[in-house]
Order: sequence, then C-alpha cells, then structure tokens
Amino acid sequence: MGSIDITSEVATPRPATRFDRKLSKILQDATAIFCEKGYERASMRDLSRVSGMSTAGLYHYFESKDKLLYLIQKDLFSTVMELLTERLQGVADPETRIRVFVLNHVEYFLTKPKAIKVLSHEDDVLHDKLGAEIAALKRQYYHRCKELIEALKSERKLEFNTRTTTMGLFGMINWLHAWYNPRVDSSPSQLAAEISDIFLQGVCYSARQPR
Amino acid sequence: MGSIDITSEVATPRPATRFDRKLSKILQDATAIFCEKGYERASMRDLSRVSGMSTAGLYHYFESKDKLLYLIQKDLFSTVMELLTERLQGVADPETRIRVFVLNHVEYFLTKPKAIKVLSHEDDVLHDKLGAEIAALKRQYYHRCKELIEALKSERKLEFNTRTTTMGLFGMINWLHAWYNPRVDSSPSQLAAEISDIFLQGVCYSARQPR
Repeated sequence: MGSIDITSEVATPRPATRFDRKLSKILQDATAIFCEKGYERASMRDLSRVSGMSTAGLYHYFESKDKLLYLIQKDLFSTVMELLTERLQGVADPETRIRVFVLNHVEYFLTKPKAIKVLSHEDDVLHDKLGAEIAALKRQYYHRCKELIEALKSERKLEFNTRTTTMGLFGMINWLHAWYNPRVDSSPSQLAAEISDIFLQGVCYSARQPR
Repeated sequence: MGSIDITSEVATPRPATRFDRKLSKILQDATAIFCEKGYERASMRDLSRVSGMSTAGLYHYFESKDKLLYLIQKDLFSTVMELLTERLQGVADPETRIRVFVLNHVEYFLTKPKAIKVLSHEDDVLHDKLGAEIAALKRQYYHRCKELIEALKSERKLEFNTRTTTMGLFGMINWLHAWYNPRVDSSPSQLAAEISDIFLQGVCYSARQPR
C-alpha cells in the first residue's frame, strides 16, 4: 500500500476574466474579515477598508452580505470538486481513488484555514435559494466520496454501513482544521496517507472478520 | 470482537442541591436559546422568558452571559468525564477500554444535539480565565482518550502517530452531530460499535503491514 504516486500537484484553477480575478480577491478579503469578526459583526465598511474598494464598487460584484457568503462557499466546493475530477482522471484502482480523494481534500482545505473557520461557523446562516444551492453542492461532494467507497466495497465484496463509513471518513478529514498545527504535525500529504491507512484497513479488515 | 457487553446504562449524575437543580435547568434553557438564536443574539430577556424567572433571579445563578456559556461547557465536559470514569471501572482490556470511550462519548453527545451545536459554534467566544479553564478541560478529555490509545499501542506493540490517530478518532465521533438522523441511522450504541470497528482494525492492522 501507499506505493503509488498520487501526490502530483494540481494547481488551483485561475479565474479567467478580470471580473473573476477581482471577485476572487474580494472573496479572499471577505473570508479573512468573516473569520476575524464573525459574519454577523462584519460590515461592508470593513470589507471596503481591507479591499481598498468603495462600498458602491463592491456592490458591483455581489448584491448582499449573504450573497458574498454564498459565493465563498460555492467557490470552495466547486474548486475542490474540479481538482478532484482532474486528479482522478486515469486512476482506476478503487483503493487508490479513495487515497486521491483524501489527499485532495486534506491538501485543499488545510491551505484554507480561514475559509474553513467561516464554513464551520456560518454553516446555517444561508436560507432559501442560496442555502439550498450550497446544500446541494455539499451533497454532491458527499456523493462523490460515497461512490468511491461503494466501488471499493463492491470490488472487495465488503459488508458495511456505507453512510456511517463515508461520514466516518469525512469526520476524520473535516476535524483536521480543529487541531492541525503545521509547526508540529506532519505534512498534509503525510497526514492524508495516515488517515487513508486507518480508514482503508479499518474498512477492509473489520468487514471481513466474523462477528 | 464486539462480544463483550459494554452497553450497561450509566445514568447522568443528578445534581444534589436545590441550587444545583435550578442551575441545571437554567443551563438547559440557555442551551436551547443559544442554539436557536446564536450566542451573540440571545439576550437575558430571552432566557428570562423561557425559564420563567426574572432577570434579577437569573443573576443570582451566574454573573454574565459569558459565565453562562462557560457553565454549559464545563457541565458537558465534566459530566462526560465522570461517566467515562465510572464505565471504565473494572475494565482492563485496552481494546475494550477504547470501545467504552467511544460508546460513552457517542451516547452522551448524541442525546445533546443542542449543546453540541452551541459548543461547535461558540468555540472561541470565551477568553481569559473562563476560556482557559474550558480549554484545560478539553485537553484533559483528549488526554484520557490518548492514554487509552497508548495502552493499546503498547500492549500490541503497534507503531503509529498517536496524535493523528487520536484526532482521527475524535473526528469520527465529533462529526456525528453534523449528520446523525435518529430516524434513518442506527442506534447510538450500534454506531459506536461501527466506528470502533473501523478505528481499531484500522489502527491495529495498518500498523502491522510492511510499507
């Protein structure tokens, strides 16, 4: 196990147009402010100060603070899914595909601690259409992972509760932001390998044991 | 594996004095309000309305909203640790002790979804002395778990990164609140067994494999 090189770097896709690049910079600034002050307390005036744009200029890019939070979340989940799709191309082995998923998630989100803090704190602020769209993106991401686990389950003729198992994996990789300290902990790719080892052996081995 | 009965119920300790019972009820009401409105937005007036006590009466039990949040968190972590200590009495086998830890955590926190929501949202509100005391309690709980894992590691002569491994387990059990739905998912004790299986086999098996 662990002998296949799955760590080849995939660059974060660069926004194409000037509008997109500017918006991307605004999302970064907004993430930093939401992280620092909390979504409720952060104001457009704060964002204007940090980004160096007038509030009128900011409203050219989004209509409301809610829309801004929506765009931050949409950008995160869309990007991590794009990167995953790229990295999975040409990888056929079910076990390796799960390792790629874990590595992609861990590398992507560990480089974005502020965004993760905003995500985990403001999880239920958005309602209506915007909230529903983000919830759908998260479900899509969850199902990508579940499919990878189901492929392994089917290949190895394993028996386990797929929902608990998938959520167990998400637990391990989502909890990282609560404790990861780059000064004392292993690199993201090493951590991803350790978590993948525990998960894969845990799933493959315990499921074959007589109970 | 999994043949030992570790599911014997341990009742949540009952507060002894009238003051303690009243405070316990206030903490429950406050948890519900913080959960519904968020800590920032919730007011003493809200708590007064729900608890049926005057705001002056409430201040007899705690001095500030921060103190209230502190008491909620302190109560949660102290209680889960007391329950764990009781349940571990007379259990010698390292693997079973980890199963007891997982079961105790999952059963305790799954019955307190509102408290968990408050915990995960208001994690960094408390500062100074109160915040430091809660952080110390959390560290103590983490170390209890780490010791259990170290005992297994030593008994079986395993090799793994204890911090990553301990945090991986916390990830699986702490993430539960984000997805658990009592109408479709297994019982807390069944879930605890599934998570323990993945974790224990993952740790024992992967560590013995040549890499």
